Amino acid sequence: MKKLINEPSDVVDEMLDGMVAAHPDEVRRLPDSNVLVRNDAPVDGKVAVVSGGGSGHEPTHAGYLGPGMLDGAAAGEVFTSPTADEVNEMIQACDAGKGVLNVVKNYEGDVMNFETAAELAEMESDVEVAEVVVNDDVAVEDSLYTSGRRGVCGTIFVHKVAGAMADRGEDLDEVQRVAQKVIDNVATMGTALTSCVTPEKGEPTFDLGEEEIELGIGIHGEPGVERTEMMPADEITERLTERVLDDLNPESGAEVATIVNGMGGTPLMELYIVNRKLQSLLDERDLTTWDAWVGDYMTSLDMQGCSVTVLVLDDELKELLSHPADTPALKVR
Amino acid sequence: MKKLINEPSDVVDEMLDGMVAAHPDEVRRLPDSNVLVRNDAPVDGKVAVVSGGGSGHEPTHAGYLGPGMLDGAAAGEVFTSPTADEVNEMIQACDAGKGVLNVVKNYEGDVMNFETAAELAEMESDVEVAEVVVNDDVAVEDSLYTSGRRGVCGTIFVHKVAGAMADRGEDLDEVQRVAQKVIDNVATMGTALTSCVTPEKGEPTFDLGEEEIELGIGIHGEPGVERTEMMPADEITERLTERVLDDLNPESGAEVATIVNGMGGTPLMELYIVNRKLQSLLDERDLTTWDAWVGDYMTSLDMQGCSVTVLVLDDELKELLSHPADTPALKVR
Repeated sequence: MKKLINEPSDVVDEMLDGMVAAHPDEVRRLPDSNVLVRNDAPVDGKVAVVSGGGSGHEPTHAGYLGPGMLDGAAAGEVFTSPTADEVNEMIQACDAGKGVLNVVKNYEGDVMNFETAAELAEMESDVEVAEVVVNDDVAVEDSLYTSGRRGVCGTIFVHKVAGAMADRGEDLDEVQRVAQKVIDNVATMGTALTSCVTPEKGEPTFDLGEEEIELGIGIHGEPGVERTEMMPADEITERLTERVLDDLNPESGAEVATIVNGMGGTPLMELYIVNRKLQSLLDERDLTTWDAWVGDYMTSLDMQGCSVTVLVLDDELKELLSHPADTPALKVR
Repeated sequence: MKKLINEPSDVVDEMLDGMVAAHPDEVRRLPDSNVLVRNDAPVDGKVAVVSGGGSGHEPTHAGYLGPGMLDGAAAGEVFTSPTADEVNEMIQACDAGKGVLNVVKNYEGDVMNFETAAELAEMESDVEVAEVVVNDDVAVEDSLYTSGRRGVCGTIFVHKVAGAMADRGEDLDEVQRVAQKVIDNVATMGTALTSCVTPEKGEPTFDLGEEEIELGIGIHGEPGVERTEMMPADEITERLTERVLDDLNPESGAEVATIVNGMGGTPLMELYIVNRKLQSLLDERDLTTWDAWVGDYMTSLDMQGCSVTVLVLDDELKELLSHPADTPALKVR
């Protein structure tokens, strides 16, 4: 399998340097570390919002560094949690004395290392750390790397909302409260048309036939709920959307924000075709789309496929989603 | 080959509806047409900048509709020029009395249909139309669909600069002048790791072995300059960059803007790895990168690969690149 890489063991290191080379005014890399932070971190007068996880999900998470979103992003090796030491470094580099919110996707390694890091940072520098764990994937209750639901693309809404609240100068409790509000009101489900190929292995993580797809796939190629034959985009979109809406069970007339997220190898053309059907399904359920995002927000290397995310809104969440953000991967004016 | 589509013959129609559903406040579709325009078109007091071409290159071109960039984008079927009638419709829908600049990529069908459309618009409604033809691909002099060099990703810099000049209220001559200045100072070369697969055919457009790549590929899978064995990303980047810089021959100390563009199926991780090497090569040549873009700007369906674009800058071009833009695919604050 061909990839634009050099040594497989260097991909994360070289990618991080390439990100800094693309955005030198916006992000910097901590010395001898796979942590990127906002160039101006720590930012006086605000709570810091940080995240991280395995690499291979770009632009997640470092693409969301900047005013109105994240202060720090710790990158592990491909599909591997960042170490507790690196997360600790990140927390301390971002804290401006008002505390730090860890936004953690629900994978056992991430949860463990972020918790250890929070204890270290509290012990070493008296940093106040709060945490939220995102578990928006409605496909499976437990999986290969999780107990409880996995954290996937809904995490980007958490970054946006918590980052906005922090940017307003609110305190750590408030930033944590709105992050949790997003988590309580967001759901996602994905599908894979092809497996991803990790740089180290160089071969598909799992086998999927020429006419097969996997519904409910995780972002590391973990098994989903069902392997089924290929279907038209409209039918796939229906299957994903129904399950997401069954989980959320929004009231008729509710306003929502949506993401049609590409898994890394899917052209934008196909994502727009999925979005067309998603929006018509929401309309049929008497839901009003207040904002619709379409693109690659949380990928799985070169996997072909997509996920559908729905967030049920209230006035506070709409205000925070509208708050300006200026990051490499997401700009809101 | 699996794709998130319904009927292959419906992909363009459904994609355009999906784009409007994602950006209803920003773009609208002309009735019974594959033309999208800015929601507020025609915009009083400014020259209109329009473009278009075959579909399959998303976010090109409709992703660049909005303040500071394009007023109209005509979408043909996949890899097929839009009709002269649709381009004519677009020109007339966007003209606010100050004239229209057609930004055309150098493919025979596009050039012919945009020229016919300009004549029709002038005849029917007395619209003043000017044109620039983008031919930034340094790979081959003539190709399957062109006499002269092909127009590829450098076109996005033309959209940005011409759109900024128009947004400032300058006249048609001035907007055309700066568009041509970009064309005279930009060069691009691409590579394919895999072929694209068109929805109609459902099979690779060309065969490329498991250990082969094609250097100098076009955005429709047209042959490049050389089929060679797979190389590390650094070596590929060197080959592309050298050829681009040989063509431009910038003075030592010059400032440049760059694009590492994904072809649709390449993960962002790999594009950043290419960007890292590109920036170090520019540095070695004593060139200063003033701005570096990394992402999917002009794709070729699901093709894996990338292109490298370099634009040599002067103060005017820097000012125009910095001018605000607010489009689905590119936002400059």
